[in-house]
Amino acid sequence: MGTLDSMKWKNGVLSLLDQRQLPNEVIWRDYTNYRDVVEAIRTLTVRGAPAIGITAGYAYVLAAYEYRNDEKNFMSSMRIAKDRLASSRPTAVNLFWALDRMEKCLVKNGSSPAAIPALEKEAIRIHTENTALCAKISSNGADILTEDVSVLTHCNAGPIACSGLGTALGVILEGFRRGKVKNVYVDETRPLLQGSRLTAWELTEAGVPTILQCDNMAGSLMQQGKIDCVIVGCDRMAANGDFANKIGTYSLAVLARFHHIPFYTALPFSSVDFSIADGSHITVEQRNGDEIKNFAGVQTAPANVMTYNPAFDVTPNKLITGIITEKGVIMPPYQKNLKKLDCTE
Amino acid sequence: MGTLDSMKWKNGVLSLLDQRQLPNEVIWRDYTNYRDVVEAIRTLTVRGAPAIGITAGYAYVLAAYEYRNDEKNFMSSMRIAKDRLASSRPTAVNLFWALDRMEKCLVKNGSSPAAIPALEKEAIRIHTENTALCAKISSNGADILTEDVSVLTHCNAGPIACSGLGTALGVILEGFRRGKVKNVYVDETRPLLQGSRLTAWELTEAGVPTILQCDNMAGSLMQQGKIDCVIVGCDRMAANGDFANKIGTYSLAVLARFHHIPFYTALPFSSVDFSIADGSHITVEQRNGDEIKNFAGVQTAPANVMTYNPAFDVTPNKLITGIITEKGVIMPPYQKNLKKLDCTE
Repeated sequence: MGTLDSMKWKNGVLSLLDQRQLPNEVIWRDYTNYRDVVEAIRTLTVRGAPAIGITAGYAYVLAAYEYRNDEKNFMSSMRIAKDRLASSRPTAVNLFWALDRMEKCLVKNGSSPAAIPALEKEAIRIHTENTALCAKISSNGADILTEDVSVLTHCNAGPIACSGLGTALGVILEGFRRGKVKNVYVDETRPLLQGSRLTAWELTEAGVPTILQCDNMAGSLMQQGKIDCVIVGCDRMAANGDFANKIGTYSLAVLARFHHIPFYTALPFSSVDFSIADGSHITVEQRNGDEIKNFAGVQTAPANVMTYNPAFDVTPNKLITGIITEKGVIMPPYQKNLKKLDCTE
Repeated sequence: MGTLDSMKWKNGVLSLLDQRQLPNEVIWRDYTNYRDVVEAIRTLTVRGAPAIGITAGYAYVLAAYEYRNDEKNFMSSMRIAKDRLASSRPTAVNLFWALDRMEKCLVKNGSSPAAIPALEKEAIRIHTENTALCAKISSNGADILTEDVSVLTHCNAGPIACSGLGTALGVILEGFRRGKVKNVYVDETRPLLQGSRLTAWELTEAGVPTILQCDNMAGSLMQQGKIDCVIVGCDRMAANGDFANKIGTYSLAVLARFHHIPFYTALPFSSVDFSIADGSHITVEQRNGDEIKNFAGVQTAPANVMTYNPAFDVTPNKLITGIITEKGVIMPPYQKNLKKLDCTE
């Protein structure tokens, strides 16, 4: 499954899978100049918080190559490179985290071009650590799946957004590998269709029997008994387990509860933000209404209509059956059990 | 509001609003040949069961004009015209009903070209009766709205699909006219976007503050207390009140129940099919998956993915707060109260 990673590093060249072209074309683009990587992140050639973090690590190595013959200005050049990379997606936490880690490695190794081999190792380590983290989340989640299940998922938290197996989709892919997952129903995920374009592509590439539906069809599937469990990703979780994820997640959680269907979210433990007590402190980003009013250059709604276009919604902890992390699957009461795991390695 | 009708009859010419071009262009097309009307129905220039029925009535008059100078073959020509019109949308009940009514009128008036003035009156009567029916549904529904409400609706059951005010949208438009409706949240209604293209257009044309959202955002709106009631149309209702409507209706009913929000359906009483006991007898049409996998000629999903694309879903009677008809707003128990009204005029 590792072949579904959206980035590769070989002989000092970074290759990125152009996610904008999926599912119509599988195009890999090679990068040797970190400025081009900044542009690639900015234009969504690469997307998904973990994938962006890994990519930024490699781009930092590209910058070090570029400045290696100017030892005098090396550190100042690297600081400029770091700032440029950090500005590519201003709200991506993984991006800042990865760049800070690379800079620490550089300082630790003499703040000079001699650190390049160590930097390359560090970038690869960020990548492999993330892959291992996803594998652990996937394995923990697959453990609790019952046999012969039909899973419903929403949006995209798979290999190309992360590395290795991904998170929510990792649980599904690992469950399929173990013969537990019969098929997967994928919400198309309006307005940007990450389910259609990315999740459905990843699943069919992995040979998983995949059925695509519009978001408004999930209730009908549950009503007919076609769904055994729902597994979604998580953008940010509060200390009590309330969590933000792609818009539509909350509706699925309510529908799952009404139909007595288990509802899981899968995430790295680092996505739990213990500084916020509950979901009411999570600010919901409102996006441009043109995402709803236009498609592929075609206007689909009156120009003067108002829109409601939040990027995500907040699902309360009471609707979650279990929280799947690399530290294990956490059951209620979430506030207590999340806190307990926060203190363990 | 009558100006939003999708058909006009004047001096022997039928004009149809080309619904395929909405909301980008408001194009009226004139018809004097009934065969062109057959094509207009077939290609969805005109859509909406009541609108198709009204259109067929006028097209029948156009056929009578065409054959008026060949008295000998008049009735056989009219039978062929009727068959051609009936074949334009093979499952449209209103279409058959309107054509049968026109033929009865022709027979009653001598089965000859001399019946043409009577036929024209009958076609206009079908139109005005339907408009009056919608007005009564709208008025009955508006009566039960509380003050200053935000309404959520799905798909399209408005003026251009019917005549006059429409059904579900009629209740909303009449409620707005009375100052009771503050604003309307419209589901875009995937995959064919009737909410974006038609409902949002009708509401903004009528001056109603209208907010468009993706179907998966309705739960989030309810969670935030932004919705006071949900009003949808109905394709077919069983004797116990279970009803089929555009896919996504069932999910809205579940979400409304979870949030303690009133959920109404509006329909002409003739949509109640007393020959079926409950919703389990309603067959759900599965449509072509290309409606989900492509948009405006752009492929948005892997070509080899399977799809689930039902045209509608079935909402059980227990999730309905009230059934709005021209005979009044029916409350539970539905089986008993629907039957009671069936016996009254």
